[in-house]
Amino acid sequence: MRVRNRKGAPEMMAENPQYVVENPEMFKGKWAEKFGNRHPIHIEVGSGKGAFITGMAQLHPEINYIAIDMQLTVLSYALDKVLALNLPNVQLLHVDGSALTNYFADGEVALVYLNFSDPWPKLRHEKRRLTYKDFLKNYETILVEQGQIHFKTDNCGLFEYSLASMSQYGMILQQVWLDLHADDTFSEKNVMTEYEAKFSSKGQVIYRVEAQFCS
Amino acid sequence: MRVRNRKGAPEMMAENPQYVVENPEMFKGKWAEKFGNRHPIHIEVGSGKGAFITGMAQLHPEINYIAIDMQLTVLSYALDKVLALNLPNVQLLHVDGSALTNYFADGEVALVYLNFSDPWPKLRHEKRRLTYKDFLKNYETILVEQGQIHFKTDNCGLFEYSLASMSQYGMILQQVWLDLHADDTFSEKNVMTEYEAKFSSKGQVIYRVEAQFCS
Repeated sequence: MRVRNRKGAPEMMAENPQYVVENPEMFKGKWAEKFGNRHPIHIEVGSGKGAFITGMAQLHPEINYIAIDMQLTVLSYALDKVLALNLPNVQLLHVDGSALTNYFADGEVALVYLNFSDPWPKLRHEKRRLTYKDFLKNYETILVEQGQIHFKTDNCGLFEYSLASMSQYGMILQQVWLDLHADDTFSEKNVMTEYEAKFSSKGQVIYRVEAQFCS
Repeated sequence: MRVRNRKGAPEMMAENPQYVVENPEMFKGKWAEKFGNRHPIHIEVGSGKGAFITGMAQLHPEINYIAIDMQLTVLSYALDKVLALNLPNVQLLHVDGSALTNYFADGEVALVYLNFSDPWPKLRHEKRRLTYKDFLKNYETILVEQGQIHFKTDNCGLFEYSLASMSQYGMILQQVWLDLHADDTFSEKNVMTEYEAKFSSKGQVIYRVEAQFCS
């Protein structure tokens, strides 16, 4: 998601070190210390404006959430929400999702969320898709054994690609949704992203998969 | 697909032993003899009225096709087409798809097609779905090493189920289509079933997967 630069965003981020992690590589293997507890750590790669992760953090105080985005402006909107809700179980990480192993030790993360990732539809941009095998390798490294990725998108091409990419990597698809909002059982607990709420209301189907690494 | 019984269907089948296999268990391991050549054998489990397999057989004279259905009436409509087209590379098998290992030797089949299989939406009927693990085990047995299933359906629930079932069985999803007819590259060579032509024209999306066994 590309958004216009927000005036004052860098200053706002710098003024809130309790939520915005400075020197994140310092916490590799030490996130439990940072959060002050040993709750499971769930990360969202490409967290955008943070509606999903702040919604989840409110529902699950027993989980620690880390929102990761490489765009400062969108992360500053996530910070707005964290500040307004005063959430102790959220941290914001302004880093590139391709370098996760710099910031997390092996097995330190319990779950990876990918929501409405950039589809990069051109084949020559395949390597930028967050479900490309090199990204999967990084997720596998930082995840617990048999860790899972929970991925949702409205993009048909990206979802087709991702199912095949995950499967060919050796992941097992535990459950697949081809019209998430038609599943009443799931909808009750589904926390929507800004994007999801907007496009779903226009009748766009939402796809979702829970996929698990074998090792 | 349930259809009304067709008068004279049993007689018609009996009168055409060149296409309708009598005593199919006799040909287990000997289908090359039956066809008179060693071309690869592709089977369609639940072939219905035969539009798909007769269409494929015309396009691919270098492949031998076996249409399998447990309903005599629908198979008799497939026979109509085979007779009209005079196709030497099609055989019709009036047997239950759950007993395939009675009719094919290990590794005798090169490809399995499943098209618009009965969705059996109730959970208590899961075992009847043609992508249930017991069926997958039979396909794996009769297929060549790293054999593939090519499956298409318009049924969202069955497709969700099948992707997860195949993946959990250990199959690799080689390619997935969530709107087959939107893929111009594939549509050119796509042979439609009767059902597919009807429902696609009503705007229903068609799902498709090519999945491969690991062994």
